Amino acid sequence: MSGNGVIRAAVVGGTGYTGAELLRLLASHPAVRLEVVTSRSEAGREVAELFPNLRGRVALRYEPPDPGRLAACDVVFFATPNGTAMEAAPRLLEAGCRVIDLAADFRLRDPAQWERWYGRPHACPALLEEAVYGLPELHREAIRRARLVANPGCYPTAAALALLPLLEAGVVEPEGLVVDAKSGVSGAGRQAALATQYCEVEGSFKAYAAGGHRHLPEITQTLAQGAGRPVGLTFVPHLVPMVRGIHATCYARLREPAADLQALLEDRYRAEPFVDVLPPGSHPETRSVRGTNLCRLAVHRPPGGHLAVVLAVIDNLVKGAAGQAVQNMNLLFGLEETLGLEGAGPLP
Amino acid sequence: MSGNGVIRAAVVGGTGYTGAELLRLLASHPAVRLEVVTSRSEAGREVAELFPNLRGRVALRYEPPDPGRLAACDVVFFATPNGTAMEAAPRLLEAGCRVIDLAADFRLRDPAQWERWYGRPHACPALLEEAVYGLPELHREAIRRARLVANPGCYPTAAALALLPLLEAGVVEPEGLVVDAKSGVSGAGRQAALATQYCEVEGSFKAYAAGGHRHLPEITQTLAQGAGRPVGLTFVPHLVPMVRGIHATCYARLREPAADLQALLEDRYRAEPFVDVLPPGSHPETRSVRGTNLCRLAVHRPPGGHLAVVLAVIDNLVKGAAGQAVQNMNLLFGLEETLGLEGAGPLP
Amino acid sequence: MSGNGVIRAAVVGGTGYTGAELLRLLASHPAVRLEVVTSRSEAGREVAELFPNLRGRVALRYEPPDPGRLAACDVVFFATPNGTAMEAAPRLLEAGCRVIDLAADFRLRDPAQWERWYGRPHACPALLEEAVYGLPELHREAIRRARLVANPGCYPTAAALALLPLLEAGVVEPEGLVVDAKSGVSGAGRQAALATQYCEVEGSFKAYAAGGHRHLPEITQTLAQGAGRPVGLTFVPHLVPMVRGIHATCYARLREPAADLQALLEDRYRAEPFVDVLPPGSHPETRSVRGTNLCRLAVHRPPGGHLAVVLAVIDNLVKGAAGQAVQNMNLLFGLEETLGLEGAGPLP
Amino acid sequence: MSGNGVIRAAVVGGTGYTGAELLRLLASHPAVRLEVVTSRSEAGREVAELFPNLRGRVALRYEPPDPGRLAACDVVFFATPNGTAMEAAPRLLEAGCRVIDLAADFRLRDPAQWERWYGRPHACPALLEEAVYGLPELHREAIRRARLVANPGCYPTAAALALLPLLEAGVVEPEGLVVDAKSGVSGAGRQAALATQYCEVEGSFKAYAAGGHRHLPEITQTLAQGAGRPVGLTFVPHLVPMVRGIHATCYARLREPAADLQALLEDRYRAEPFVDVLPPGSHPETRSVRGTNLCRLAVHRPPGGHLAVVLAVIDNLVKGAAGQAVQNMNLLFGLEETLGLEGAGPLP
Repeated sequence: MSGNGVIRAAVVGGTGYTGAELLRLLASHPAVRLEVVTSRSEAGREVAELFPNLRGRVALRYEPPDPGRLAACDVVFFATPNGTAMEAAPRLLEAGCRVIDLAADFRLRDPAQWERWYGRPHACPALLEEAVYGLPELHREAIRRARLVANPGCYPTAAALALLPLLEAGVVEPEGLVVDAKSGVSGAGRQAALATQYCEVEGSFKAYAAGGHRHLPEITQTLAQGAGRPVGLTFVPHLVPMVRGIHATCYARLREPAADLQALLEDRYRAEPFVDVLPPGSHPETRSVRGTNLCRLAVHRPPGGHLAVVLAVIDNLVKGAAGQAVQNMNLLFGLEETLGLEGAGPLP
Repeated sequence: MSGNGVIRAAVVGGTGYTGAELLRLLASHPAVRLEVVTSRSEAGREVAELFPNLRGRVALRYEPPDPGRLAACDVVFFATPNGTAMEAAPRLLEAGCRVIDLAADFRLRDPAQWERWYGRPHACPALLEEAVYGLPELHREAIRRARLVANPGCYPTAAALALLPLLEAGVVEPEGLVVDAKSGVSGAGRQAALATQYCEVEGSFKAYAAGGHRHLPEITQTLAQGAGRPVGLTFVPHLVPMVRGIHATCYARLREPAADLQALLEDRYRAEPFVDVLPPGSHPETRSVRGTNLCRLAVHRPPGGHLAVVLAVIDNLVKGAAGQAVQNMNLLFGLEETLGLEGAGPLP
Repeated sequence: MSGNGVIRAAVVGGTGYTGAELLRLLASHPAVRLEVVTSRSEAGREVAELFPNLRGRVALRYEPPDPGRLAACDVVFFATPNGTAMEAAPRLLEAGCRVIDLAADFRLRDPAQWERWYGRPHACPALLEEAVYGLPELHREAIRRARLVANPGCYPTAAALALLPLLEAGVVEPEGLVVDAKSGVSGAGRQAALATQYCEVEGSFKAYAAGGHRHLPEITQTLAQGAGRPVGLTFVPHLVPMVRGIHATCYARLREPAADLQALLEDRYRAEPFVDVLPPGSHPETRSVRGTNLCRLAVHRPPGGHLAVVLAVIDNLVKGAAGQAVQNMNLLFGLEETLGLEGAGPLP
Repeated sequence: MSGNGVIRAAVVGGTGYTGAELLRLLASHPAVRLEVVTSRSEAGREVAELFPNLRGRVALRYEPPDPGRLAACDVVFFATPNGTAMEAAPRLLEAGCRVIDLAADFRLRDPAQWERWYGRPHACPALLEEAVYGLPELHREAIRRARLVANPGCYPTAAALALLPLLEAGVVEPEGLVVDAKSGVSGAGRQAALATQYCEVEGSFKAYAAGGHRHLPEITQTLAQGAGRPVGLTFVPHLVPMVRGIHATCYARLREPAADLQALLEDRYRAEPFVDVLPPGSHPETRSVRGTNLCRLAVHRPPGGHLAVVLAVIDNLVKGAAGQAVQNMNLLFGLEETLGLEGAGPLP
């Protein structure tokens, strides 16, 4: 950190929606000075040209990634495609930077799993061991001491916050879990793809990747940590015609029919600044967390079966990406965990 | 039917979205003449004032319900709130009309169940026995011979078409079924409610009625018929920010891991004009059936669990309501089952 | 036309939204047999893979354009980018085909204007003279006798139908006209562009091309024909976060304050099957014409100024493209003008 | 103001979207303490029950309006239907409160005009003279000295900021002005109305109130002040299927064809913290100001006519209502004008 207590921050790959949201949050963070935003393709353009909401707020231009410029920062965020951070992180860590990767490079502890799901060998498996999975509600103390944080995926954040309390308490079976997850379109990133054209998405709903999604091993890894044993999970993601938001509907077979699930969730998250357990009978709406770092939860026991159902909502770009990254940065630098993440989101 | 082979049709309660869709379909049905459209609240107004798409297509005005005028028709459709058809049906049946109820009055065979879920005693339990549940894919022959058809609910249609083949074949457990269903907003009807205001719904996603939805007993009843034994079902409906469409994501534990689910579905529906089983690996989109009477299905076995997942999409106002009602009418009157239901829907 | 009265039709460039809508309309047109659908990029794929609404309705596969195959058809539709039809049309006309171009190649009568707005010399200026501008409400008789029809643009169709009656009658000034037009996103075509990504468009509204849009000379040319003298027009298009629909709000200074504009519009369009003048005080909605070939109009005189305001709505893919093309085909082949275009659109 | 420099604020009528946005802004305003939120219909309920985004941010419950409780505040905001503030304001002003009315009660200086457009006599015409029209870009110094501020309407804010510079400079004709304005649905308020149901609005576009809208006299009054003489204005509002945002497309005949309109706008707004003139050739998007107090402008001279076109975007709930009210409060209390209004909005 610089002498005056200001954190000098760099964002590598700031042209996607995750990067843009990170820039928005960092630009108004009272302890941060944005120093560098990199992009190969947009080098030279003003950030505000791509993201007009940042006009007058972020004065930087994109620049090509320069290792020296990055290494001079206190923290480097990677908002890049998978596979970029693992190439650059070792040198930055050596230079004394903290690194927060918003992509998937350091999320899976097992390099074989990584290779299986991401289609190439991992570039620095040694760092997989050191990296801390940045879900503060599960690994807060480790994050505080970390150099390298693997910021969780959006679906995994919602699914883990929903199911961890039940699995930790042993009140549900670790087998036969179902996470039926729904995401807004911004989760697909900012790119000129046909499948996410307005006219291909608007007014329609569909599942995708029912044959296997990369977030499956990440969710499974986290839930198994909570359960203290392997878990069996069926995960089906869906695309919702809306911009932001994830809704995870999570089903688990009850082991202890008499368990007070509401109390269990409330106890688990009582001290958490960003997890809000709704009163009994509630149904969280994605709009209630839009633009914020909150996760809102509700638990139900529908008639007709013997399942617990936990409903979880987050903003995929905030608690599911950029906001959680800022929360992790706050932890890394010993700041108030909620700093720069306090505002209420607009509604409607 | 009138001498010239034209079916004289009445629509009771034609001011909702289901009624409007029914009017649209009947107006272009080559064997139907729309005679009467009733509404107490809108009596005297032109149908096209409420539904500008029908300007120049439906020349009728709403009129107050008149038993004699209705009884002079060959078929009377009820697109009314629950509880209306059961009051009026007996007299119409006596007069020789066929009755198709698009509401829930005749869907549950057990009057006690009806009372439990609809909050009042059933007005004509005797007719519950005679009424045929109008899912042609399950009860085609009975429908042909019926006087009174209980048109299925939208969620039940999607869930039944998805799960019946697996349950009939015995390849999945009848316990622990999960139907995670998502509906467009038109399913909530056309009324001045705060919860379905544009600004309350747009850009947001939520579950609702997780504590128990009226379609649960209806789905359970149908699935149990298919399975030949009771089933255990957890049903959670969700609201999607789109106008039309239902997507049911249905989970079932495999009893026979080696079963060829794709072949099973294809065989089951080979002869069905309105059920389309997609090729392996597909994900049906609600927009692909918009404005049509089709149900599109795909089956998956995601990694990580031992569940079969069937994805089903319908247009809630067509196959989930008005279109299925016309299909049932075609069966009742010995017409080609697809008559008036042939067009492809617009896309995008 | 083939001996049995069936029109053999080809669609060149059937992978865009205009092409898909044309395929949908032709597939259910009682006098047409779809013979050929071409696409270089998608050759070999089934049409229904790209457009799942056509599954079971259009059984064709895309094929590379083959002049012989096209020349064997009675009518060839071009749903191609600008510049394609003008290369291929001469040979097809020689072979005796009728040609309907849904792009802009034959819309402007002046080759210099064409070159100015489309950025290259016109390939067959001689045909510009022969081509008939396919706005049936203005050129019906010429279309009946044509070999080559230039199907109008979407904005020009709405603007012309709104303003022609006032200009023809001389009740407004031909100078100082304003067309403030709003279009759904499907008007931008089906392509992997960043600007029309869901997340770039949803929940936002903007003008575009305020510095000059290619439809300006086309609108001006048509209005000048109606006025019998040059007109001065300011045209600003806008992008609406919806899929289909154009709304043109047209402003003109009244020359004759006492003119009965309502009667004038009603008289002008009394016999037109696809133009519907709404009652005084109405505001047409784009959804009222969705999926149909209708144009709906209303005229107002707002307080505070001395302007006539005409509101016009069409479905940009139907009356603004594919539907008008089918209407023109019906005229070319002496069929009932409304054949295959009768259905009411779905609402909501 | 209380001794410690904290402004005690009351919001009368906090159940609409304007009120909710005001609560959101005030809750995070560093110089404000929210004391009272009133609602007759919702008295006793927590604010966060109606607006889940405020859960954990606003702990208040609605209470019935109590004159004494309100009079004990430093500032009272009225986010009520038209006609409420004019009944209550006199007593609050006597008690020494500052009053900011977000409704229309004090916007028109002429009581006869008010009566004509709002359908009843004004309750305190004397205060119309004292009230200051709260458009800081036009009346900043008067607002600083005011007791009673009439917060401008949403359309009038956008139209005035677009056209004032041109009229003040005399480069356009004051006659024949056209404001073609488009608004998101939240402008219609939060109420259980059929016309703003999701399924009535989604996927459709329409004009409304073309026969005369209440914002016409308000816009005219402001523009006439800028022009120093009467103006002639045609104003047509439209409804866009989106939640937030206004886009005003403003047309004016050029008096001085050589005027440098870009420089004129830039000069006029150089010192304004909330007005952003975009570079030449730009098209402002409503999403670029979502959730913020900014107005973004661009000016064009389209070919084909001799008109200047100014494009203006605001968030109707912020610069068009609650944000401008906070800006006015800041001025009233001698605070930094931008206090509590600094954040960038989320995008996408």
